[in-house]
Amino acid sequence: MSKTRWNVAVVGATGAVGEQIIKLLEKRDFPVGKLKLLSSARSAGTVVTFKGQEIVVEEARPDSFEGIDIALFSAGGDVSKELAPHAVRHGAVCIDNTNAFRMDENTPLVVPEVNAEKIWEHKGIIANPNCSTIQMVAALKPLYDKFGIDRIIVSTYQAVSGAGARAIDEMRRQTKEILENGATTPDILPVGSLPVKHQIAFNAIPQIDKFQDNGYTLEEMKMVRETKKIFGDDSVQVTATCVRIPVVYGHSESVYVELKQDFDLEEVKQLLSEAPGVVLVDDPSQQAYPLASEAAGKNEVFVGRIRRDLTNSRGLNLWIVSDNLLKGAAWNAVQIAEQFVAKS
Amino acid sequence: MSKTRWNVAVVGATGAVGEQIIKLLEKRDFPVGKLKLLSSARSAGTVVTFKGQEIVVEEARPDSFEGIDIALFSAGGDVSKELAPHAVRHGAVCIDNTNAFRMDENTPLVVPEVNAEKIWEHKGIIANPNCSTIQMVAALKPLYDKFGIDRIIVSTYQAVSGAGARAIDEMRRQTKEILENGATTPDILPVGSLPVKHQIAFNAIPQIDKFQDNGYTLEEMKMVRETKKIFGDDSVQVTATCVRIPVVYGHSESVYVELKQDFDLEEVKQLLSEAPGVVLVDDPSQQAYPLASEAAGKNEVFVGRIRRDLTNSRGLNLWIVSDNLLKGAAWNAVQIAEQFVAKS
Repeated sequence: MSKTRWNVAVVGATGAVGEQIIKLLEKRDFPVGKLKLLSSARSAGTVVTFKGQEIVVEEARPDSFEGIDIALFSAGGDVSKELAPHAVRHGAVCIDNTNAFRMDENTPLVVPEVNAEKIWEHKGIIANPNCSTIQMVAALKPLYDKFGIDRIIVSTYQAVSGAGARAIDEMRRQTKEILENGATTPDILPVGSLPVKHQIAFNAIPQIDKFQDNGYTLEEMKMVRETKKIFGDDSVQVTATCVRIPVVYGHSESVYVELKQDFDLEEVKQLLSEAPGVVLVDDPSQQAYPLASEAAGKNEVFVGRIRRDLTNSRGLNLWIVSDNLLKGAAWNAVQIAEQFVAKS
Repeated sequence: MSKTRWNVAVVGATGAVGEQIIKLLEKRDFPVGKLKLLSSARSAGTVVTFKGQEIVVEEARPDSFEGIDIALFSAGGDVSKELAPHAVRHGAVCIDNTNAFRMDENTPLVVPEVNAEKIWEHKGIIANPNCSTIQMVAALKPLYDKFGIDRIIVSTYQAVSGAGARAIDEMRRQTKEILENGATTPDILPVGSLPVKHQIAFNAIPQIDKFQDNGYTLEEMKMVRETKKIFGDDSVQVTATCVRIPVVYGHSESVYVELKQDFDLEEVKQLLSEAPGVVLVDDPSQQAYPLASEAAGKNEVFVGRIRRDLTNSRGLNLWIVSDNLLKGAAWNAVQIAEQFVAKS
């Protein structure tokens, strides 16, 4: 029973990630039968061109999923919680890009380079991990397989596009105002729904998402929990500091990893250079290392600045960069969809 | 033999740090007798106002230091190497803000909050540490004293002012060009004297200063070596990743520290709140944590985001922010000068 065309719904079609998903479905020549574009009532009516065909975005509702085979969700956790069960009820497989089901024990959390086999354990929903987690585990996978990983200490340098299109506008406005008048007023970041606002232009904000009772932010705890779940290994210890910086596209991460055994640095580089979806950019003599400005718009995860901790023979520093809207969201979701249809 | 007035020379008087030193000498009402302002031949002739008096900047030369008691150097390592010995020969004590003598075994490397007593071991030159090191050790000192420190894993978020006034202009130009045209051409950063240039606007560059043979940058190795020297303890292990981000003033640091013993988190906060030169800003319920935008223009080191590593009872995460031109340079130098004159 092998289909040749799949009816696809994109929920959150007018958002930053939804737009990228639609572009990727076209660019990758995904075997789309019917494409249904869904959004909030506010954005319904928008016209989107897909493969030369104009499609009117409709309001997403419980009955929107009739006849849909694959539904890609990226309209926020509340929308996924409300509508994904209805999509499943209509027989669709959901690939959910929100935090709604990631830690649900019946929902596989998938980065295809790491645990593609989990796709087939789905009960209707497959979760796409958080952007900052995806790029880290994709790059660490070959090291996990070869040497084992005891612990990860990560500090992130995250782009504002991760907070949505309004946050990008906000950063541009603030930047312009500071350049022209030397001052600005923050309006959205760090967290739209919280009362205190901080300047993002020419600044670094050590808060992404809400604080938890343990003093970590939700973004930091996502990196802890999702990494364990994706590797399928609760023994991997993770401690994270997540920071927003004035970059539009592309998260960078300073990752310290303590392997389970000593390693040869050249072997680490060799493994990374051969890893699927990973590009090694690591030549100090040419000042070559991954940069957000160069990763933007690309699907791969870029790794460089690879060097041994001078004081710990199992310690390794890496600099990992990827486009948070692509591998960190839209591309990882479309990758899952591609693997799903290839074997269905 | 207690002097009441001291003849002071500022070498690099027209530079970003030199300007701050002159402002601080005035603001702190430092007991200046004669103030001699020195610079390169190019900047000589500039007129600077100090306490209402106009002073013409002169070219720094070997014979410029006659009658000078204290010479504050911040005109680059080559200038210090050439001229500091002449200042010493004329009987001055040099406080050197460059990398020229920091690791010299006869030169004390001083952060007054940590090792002020070393000032008195000088042989004519006292070195001011690197900006990224100063704020880290100032904040960690009370934890070092109380618990001991096994290792430090630090990732920095450094401001462009650390690369000089031209780098600030460059970032502003690039930012404006990208906002207006979507593209720019890099000209100075990451390292003025190296051939490859990278965009700093809306980007994160994981290179500060030149690469060493071990794959670390000089900035990263400064943090390793200087931390050991300032604590007077070679057993403190440090591994650093130093990153330039689009911020004008204020370095931020994500610091993971492994103490020698278990700790009580409230005691850590209490110690930091009482530490000299350190301000605790740590209230998640109010979204309060240190920010470069708020540290700029202040002398203190700000610490927050204090939380226990959930997987290691001796592991602690902190977020440390300070103005790199003040505590990271000019203020630390003037502090040393103040302590020197207070006991001379």
